[in-house]
Amino acid sequence: MKKLINSPATVLEESLDGFAAAHADIVTLGEERKFVRRRQLVPGKVALISGGGSGHEPLHAGFVGHGMLDAACPGQVFTSPTPDQMIAAAEAVDGGAGILFIVKNYEGDVMNFDMAAEMAGKDIMKVITDDDVAVEASTWSTGRRGVAGTLVVEKVVGAAAEQGRSLVELQALGTGVNLATRSMGVALTSCTVPAAGTPTFTLAADEMEMGVGIHGEPGRRRVALGTADEIADEMVGAIHEDFGRSGDALLLVNGFGGTPLMELYLMYHAARVRLEQRGFAVRRSLVGNYVTSLEMAGASITVTLLDDEIARLWDAPVHTAALRWGL
Amino acid sequence: MKKLINSPATVLEESLDGFAAAHADIVTLGEERKFVRRRQLVPGKVALISGGGSGHEPLHAGFVGHGMLDAACPGQVFTSPTPDQMIAAAEAVDGGAGILFIVKNYEGDVMNFDMAAEMAGKDIMKVITDDDVAVEASTWSTGRRGVAGTLVVEKVVGAAAEQGRSLVELQALGTGVNLATRSMGVALTSCTVPAAGTPTFTLAADEMEMGVGIHGEPGRRRVALGTADEIADEMVGAIHEDFGRSGDALLLVNGFGGTPLMELYLMYHAARVRLEQRGFAVRRSLVGNYVTSLEMAGASITVTLLDDEIARLWDAPVHTAALRWGL
Repeated sequence: MKKLINSPATVLEESLDGFAAAHADIVTLGEERKFVRRRQLVPGKVALISGGGSGHEPLHAGFVGHGMLDAACPGQVFTSPTPDQMIAAAEAVDGGAGILFIVKNYEGDVMNFDMAAEMAGKDIMKVITDDDVAVEASTWSTGRRGVAGTLVVEKVVGAAAEQGRSLVELQALGTGVNLATRSMGVALTSCTVPAAGTPTFTLAADEMEMGVGIHGEPGRRRVALGTADEIADEMVGAIHEDFGRSGDALLLVNGFGGTPLMELYLMYHAARVRLEQRGFAVRRSLVGNYVTSLEMAGASITVTLLDDEIARLWDAPVHTAALRWGL
Repeated sequence: MKKLINSPATVLEESLDGFAAAHADIVTLGEERKFVRRRQLVPGKVALISGGGSGHEPLHAGFVGHGMLDAACPGQVFTSPTPDQMIAAAEAVDGGAGILFIVKNYEGDVMNFDMAAEMAGKDIMKVITDDDVAVEASTWSTGRRGVAGTLVVEKVVGAAAEQGRSLVELQALGTGVNLATRSMGVALTSCTVPAAGTPTFTLAADEMEMGVGIHGEPGRRRVALGTADEIADEMVGAIHEDFGRSGDALLLVNGFGGTPLMELYLMYHAARVRLEQRGFAVRRSLVGNYVTSLEMAGASITVTLLDDEIARLWDAPVHTAALRWGL
């Protein structure tokens, strides 16, 4: 295992300390590093809390700040955070207007956020993201997995929360954005969880995992390494088929951590051409490493069907460690 | 070679097409893809042009836009762009106030930018960046290599150009920022140039290259893989020793492309603690993959000694594909 670390046992805490120090203008770290929260809270605003296993950085802590999340609870690598983390975060960022949990659809995450919602004694609702069209159930999920589309849900709902919308409205909006969002990914290499020390899975030199999950979970099938165009054909095709229609779209090409930006832009090009051939009009774009799987090589394609409201909320100002515009 | 590409021969053009489409609000692509330039030019402003071999994305095209570069000339992967690219870029972005070339100190780059300056028949000056303290000369450089500190030079000089400063002033400023900036990097793995198809160098499973260059050039020595703290000790020590003093600082922890953000923040933590122990006060921070070496695992530490002017120019609004704040 070749990593820039001191010990697998201290990776998360040292990384969080670095994150909080580098972005001290935006965030502060909760007691015992249970959560990362906005430095400036907005009283009377619905508080948005997300979280999940670490190793997907900048998701979720990198999305804490104005126009997006109020707090994020980081679990150990690829491990759900515990209910006491969400409860502590809820206590810290409750602005009196209710709390929305945004949770990727993995059994551990859903269970722990549900338990926290019950125990916190607060007005809490939740949105579950399950945008991955690759498989209908997976290693840690009943139903589809929540992957890079979670970024879109957090951005759009975060902008609406900033406008003062109610908890019920935000939950409906988040549910709608998730329904308007589809993703699919491919892995060219595995990743190595620091505490495990060996790769999560193995791929031969000429193989790829089509439809991989963000923890390296199996996808649709393991096949010979294809060209970018062949990969884009399959992923865009699966997304379009699942939508059953085309339209104005946001296109997010997301790297899993080990793929250079040069290749991500090349994949963006391949995906965009295919979306346009299928009747989509790409109106908004994002390319980069946002929902990662440690150092896994590979990428995912996410498409959100845009209406005027979602587009406007996407464009609204945001000021977080990983996404920033208009401020 | 496992890459998301169609063919080594078309990587650069397909990637540039994707980049230009994804950021069409900020940039346009020059004829024959000779350069990437700002969509909105500012008449009467000194034009800033940089460039170099591709494979370091987002450097330099990702830094084209308001508050930073006017144009960037991308060569093939790890290969200098040609003089006709710089000449075409100079024609396209000349605002009548002169042109400043910002060039990393590699022989091919310096030679080709010099040739372009001679042939263009325009008022052109240049700033050479050579911030890498690891070695005094290297595979492709006489004198120190220009590495991640180039980002700081481009940001600070870009902000000053936006204020209407003269070509002579900007050249002096850029030279000063380069002199106030030091970097050093470490590689845990090699990278593979698409056209070569095999890794640029090889490292054993327990080895790292201390002081590596951004093309995988040899550094100070090949040694056993150290901990993040040991690596930070050596890199921060080398930077501090080379400065010969401490002070207010900007700390940039830059990933080479294959290292997860989690590890970069951990390295940031290790570097920051050591800088503070040595009397530096870290006033500005940037952590991420900015000056990369394809999918190489590893990171560099860059420190710029700040005065009020450099800090103010660093904070000034910027709107590019890869760096954006205040707009």
